[in-house]
Amino acid sequence: MLKKITFLTVFMLTLPFSPIWSQSEQDALFVKEIYNHTLSNGKCYNWLKILSEDIGGRLAGSVEAEKAVDYTYDLMLSLGFDTVYMQSCEVKKWERGTKEEVFVQRQNGEKIDIASLALGNSVGTNNEIYSGEIIELLSLDSLETYGEERIRGKIIFFNRPMDPTQLRTFNAYGGAVDQRVYGASRAAKYGAKAVLVRSLTTLVDDYPHTGVTVYEENTIKIPALAISTKAANQISEILETENLTASIKTSSQNLGIGESYNVIGEIKGTEYPEEIILVGGHLDSWDVGGGAHDDGAGCVHSLQAIVSLLELGFRPKHTFRCVMFMNEENGLAGGLKYAEVSNGKNEFHLAAIESDAGGFTPRGFSCDAEPDKFNILYKALTSFNPVLEAYDLRLVKGGSGADINPLKSQGGLLIGFRPDSQRYFDYHHSSKDRIDAVNERELKLGAAAISSLIYLIDTYGLRKQ
Amino acid sequence: MLKKITFLTVFMLTLPFSPIWSQSEQDALFVKEIYNHTLSNGKCYNWLKILSEDIGGRLAGSVEAEKAVDYTYDLMLSLGFDTVYMQSCEVKKWERGTKEEVFVQRQNGEKIDIASLALGNSVGTNNEIYSGEIIELLSLDSLETYGEERIRGKIIFFNRPMDPTQLRTFNAYGGAVDQRVYGASRAAKYGAKAVLVRSLTTLVDDYPHTGVTVYEENTIKIPALAISTKAANQISEILETENLTASIKTSSQNLGIGESYNVIGEIKGTEYPEEIILVGGHLDSWDVGGGAHDDGAGCVHSLQAIVSLLELGFRPKHTFRCVMFMNEENGLAGGLKYAEVSNGKNEFHLAAIESDAGGFTPRGFSCDAEPDKFNILYKALTSFNPVLEAYDLRLVKGGSGADINPLKSQGGLLIGFRPDSQRYFDYHHSSKDRIDAVNERELKLGAAAISSLIYLIDTYGLRKQ
Repeated sequence: MLKKITFLTVFMLTLPFSPIWSQSEQDALFVKEIYNHTLSNGKCYNWLKILSEDIGGRLAGSVEAEKAVDYTYDLMLSLGFDTVYMQSCEVKKWERGTKEEVFVQRQNGEKIDIASLALGNSVGTNNEIYSGEIIELLSLDSLETYGEERIRGKIIFFNRPMDPTQLRTFNAYGGAVDQRVYGASRAAKYGAKAVLVRSLTTLVDDYPHTGVTVYEENTIKIPALAISTKAANQISEILETENLTASIKTSSQNLGIGESYNVIGEIKGTEYPEEIILVGGHLDSWDVGGGAHDDGAGCVHSLQAIVSLLELGFRPKHTFRCVMFMNEENGLAGGLKYAEVSNGKNEFHLAAIESDAGGFTPRGFSCDAEPDKFNILYKALTSFNPVLEAYDLRLVKGGSGADINPLKSQGGLLIGFRPDSQRYFDYHHSSKDRIDAVNERELKLGAAAISSLIYLIDTYGLRKQ
Repeated sequence: MLKKITFLTVFMLTLPFSPIWSQSEQDALFVKEIYNHTLSNGKCYNWLKILSEDIGGRLAGSVEAEKAVDYTYDLMLSLGFDTVYMQSCEVKKWERGTKEEVFVQRQNGEKIDIASLALGNSVGTNNEIYSGEIIELLSLDSLETYGEERIRGKIIFFNRPMDPTQLRTFNAYGGAVDQRVYGASRAAKYGAKAVLVRSLTTLVDDYPHTGVTVYEENTIKIPALAISTKAANQISEILETENLTASIKTSSQNLGIGESYNVIGEIKGTEYPEEIILVGGHLDSWDVGGGAHDDGAGCVHSLQAIVSLLELGFRPKHTFRCVMFMNEENGLAGGLKYAEVSNGKNEFHLAAIESDAGGFTPRGFSCDAEPDKFNILYKALTSFNPVLEAYDLRLVKGGSGADINPLKSQGGLLIGFRPDSQRYFDYHHSSKDRIDAVNERELKLGAAAISSLIYLIDTYGLRKQ
C-alpha cells in the first residue's frame, strides 16, 4: 500500500494554484512537436496494415493471434523499449468452422438466403440443420411475456435496432447489445432452439456483425447467430403478413482453454519508476475482417504514442508501460491477468489509458477512477485543458476501457480514448473492419492525442490542482 | 439602410444579462427534437445520392448543372417552401474534352504514364502534344530565382505538398493552392510551355485532383494540369538523378459565357419578414466524380436544415432563404449575382450560413462579419454555446464561405459550417468525391447542427447579450 499513500500524500501536499502553468507555453510547444512529428513521421498506419492485413483477424487462441503476439513483441524490441515481455494468460478457444448457412422459407416455399455470422462462443448445430418457426422479439423481457409454451422449439429473432438518435453511437450499442450477449442464454430457458440477432450497426446493409454471446451457468447452450440488418428488416417485413421458418447450420465450436499472451513493453521512469503510466489496446480481434479499428488501431495508437515521445528525445519520469492485451473480445483473460499480476506485486498505476474505440479523429478522453478519488484526479487532469483544447480534445467523465477497468482498485486514473464514434459500428466485428476503413491522418491524430496526454501526465504527475 | 439601423437599434437596446435563458431548457429540448427528427427521418442522404450519382458531376454551364437546377427547384417546391425561384447568372463555360494524356520520358527512353486532370479553365494543346523538359519548383517565387532563360520552353512542375502538420486540412490547402490557381499565369510570364501541379491532397495515391486555375490579364494562356501525388513523388525522385521530359495533350477549352441559375427557396418570416436568415451551398461541382462532399453535401445540408424545422411544425419569425448557389468552382457567378440583387433591393441578411466543407461529422461554425460589427455579433452568437456544446459544436472566429462572402457589406453575421476536415481533401475535386465517400449519419448530423443554429438565431435574432 506504500505507493498509494505516497501518491495521495504528494497529491495533497501540492499547493493549490501553484505556478506550474508558467510552463504552459513550453507544454504547448512540446505538444505541437508531438503532433508535427507523429503526423509527419508516424509509422502507426504501416504497423496497422501488417496487423490487420498481413496477419488479419486475430481471435484469441488462433494462429493469427500468435503471430500478432510475435509481431508486436519484435516490434517493441525494435522501437526502443527498455524491457519487452510476454505475460501468459489462459484464453477460451473458439472457432467458427465452415461458413454458416441460414435461410428462411416462406409459405409459398420460396427460400431466402440470409447473411449471417455465428456469434463468438456460440455452439454449433452438430452437423444438422436446425429449423423452426421464427418469433421476432424486441427485448429479452418479451420472452417472459411471450411465454415458454409458444417459444419451445422455435427460433427467436431479436430485432431491436440501435437507437439512431443517440449522438454517441456507443450509447446506442449499449442500448441494444444485451440481445447479442444474453439473448441465447435467456431464450434457451424458454425452450428456444436457436437465436438470430439483428447486427449491431446503424447502417442497413448486408454485412453481419459478430461479437460475443455468453452462456449463463446452468442453461442449455443453443446456437446464436447475427444476421445482417438488411436481412433483419426483410424478415421483419415478411413476418407482418405471414409466418416464416428459419433453417440454421453452423459448425462453430468451443475448443477448451489455450495459452496466449499479453505483450508488454516498458520504459523505466527516471524519477518515479514505481508509478506506472499505462497505455494500451487489445491485440485480439474477431476472426472476420482484419480487426483494424477494433482494436488494431488501439494497439498502434499506444505504440506510436510512446514512440513519438522517445523519438523526440523525451525520457519519462514515471514508468511507461505499453500493453497489448489479449482476449478482450471473448473473456477478457488478458486484462484480468494483467491486473491480477499487477495487484499481486503491489504496483500502482498513476494512470491507465486504453484506446478501444477505433482509429477515427480524436475528440477527447473519458475519465474514471475509484469514487473517493475520482473528483480530485479528474480536476487534476482537467488542468491540462488549455493545452488539449487547442487540439479539439475534451475531457469528460465516463468509462475507460474493458482491459484496464480491473486496475480500478489501485486508485489511479483510468482513461478511455474517445475518437469520433459515428462510423465505428459501420465496421465493428464485421468483415469490413479492414485497413481501408482507417484514414491514416485520423489514426495518427489519435496517437498524437494520446501521446500528448501521457506527456502531460508524466510531466505533472496528476499532482496539479 | 432602414433595416440595418433597425437591426442595430434593437440589438443595442437589448439589456445585458436579460433573462432569455430561462428558455434554455426549452431550447435544449427543441434542439434535441431537431437532432432526433433529422437522424431518424432525414432525407438528405437520398437527395445527395440523386445529385451526385443520378445527375453526377455538375460543372456550371453543363447539362448536369441544368438537371441539378431543375431537380432542386422541383424538390424545394415539394418540400413546403412558400416561394421557389431561379435567379439567372452568367457562367463561364469550360469543358474538359477527351481524356488528358500526360507521360514523362526518361533518358533511357522509358515512358511513364502520369495520372492527370486538366485544371478548370485551362486551355488545351490545340490537338498537339506539348513536350518539354520538366523543371520542378516548390513555390511561385522560385520562378524568379530560376529565371526566364532557363524556364522558356520548359514545363514547370509545381510540387510543394500540403503541410501534413496542419491540424485543419483547409489551412494546409490554403498554404499550397496558389500553385494551382496562379501557377500557369505566373509561369507563362517566364515563357513556360505548360504547368503540371501536384494534386492538393495529403494522401499519396494515383488520383489527380482538379480545381480552378486563373489566367491573369495580359498573360499568355498555357495549359495547366494536376497530376496525382504518387506521380508527383515519382517524377521528383527521378529528377534527383536525371532530367525528364513531359509530354502533354489535352483538348480542354473555354466555351464563352452561358446562362445558369441560383435556385432559391423562401419561407416568409412571421415577425421580421425583412430580416433574412440564409442557409446555402453551391450546386455546381467539378465534372469528375459526383460532387458529393463538394458541395452536394452543403446543398442537402441546407435543405434538410430547413425541412427538419418545417416538419417539426416550426414557423420562422425571420425569413428563411435556402440558396443553391451556381458556379462557385469556376468564377463565383452565383454568389456575386445573389449579393448584387440583394444589395440592389436593400435587403438585410441577419445571418448567412454556408456549408461548403463536406458532409463529415460537425465540429462547429466559424463566424465573420464587417469588422465594426463583428465582436458584438460574435458575442451574441456565443450565447448559444450552452446549447451547442452539448452537441460538440464550437463557435470560432474565421472565414465563412465563398458564396456568402459578398454579403458582408450588409453587416449581418456570416457563418461557415465546420465539419471534421481530416478526410475532405482525400476526395476534393477528384473522381473519388462520390456518395460512397459520404457517411449518412455524419451528413445528417451536419444538417441537424445547421438546423439547430438557424433555430436559435431565429428565436433570439442575434439580439441576446
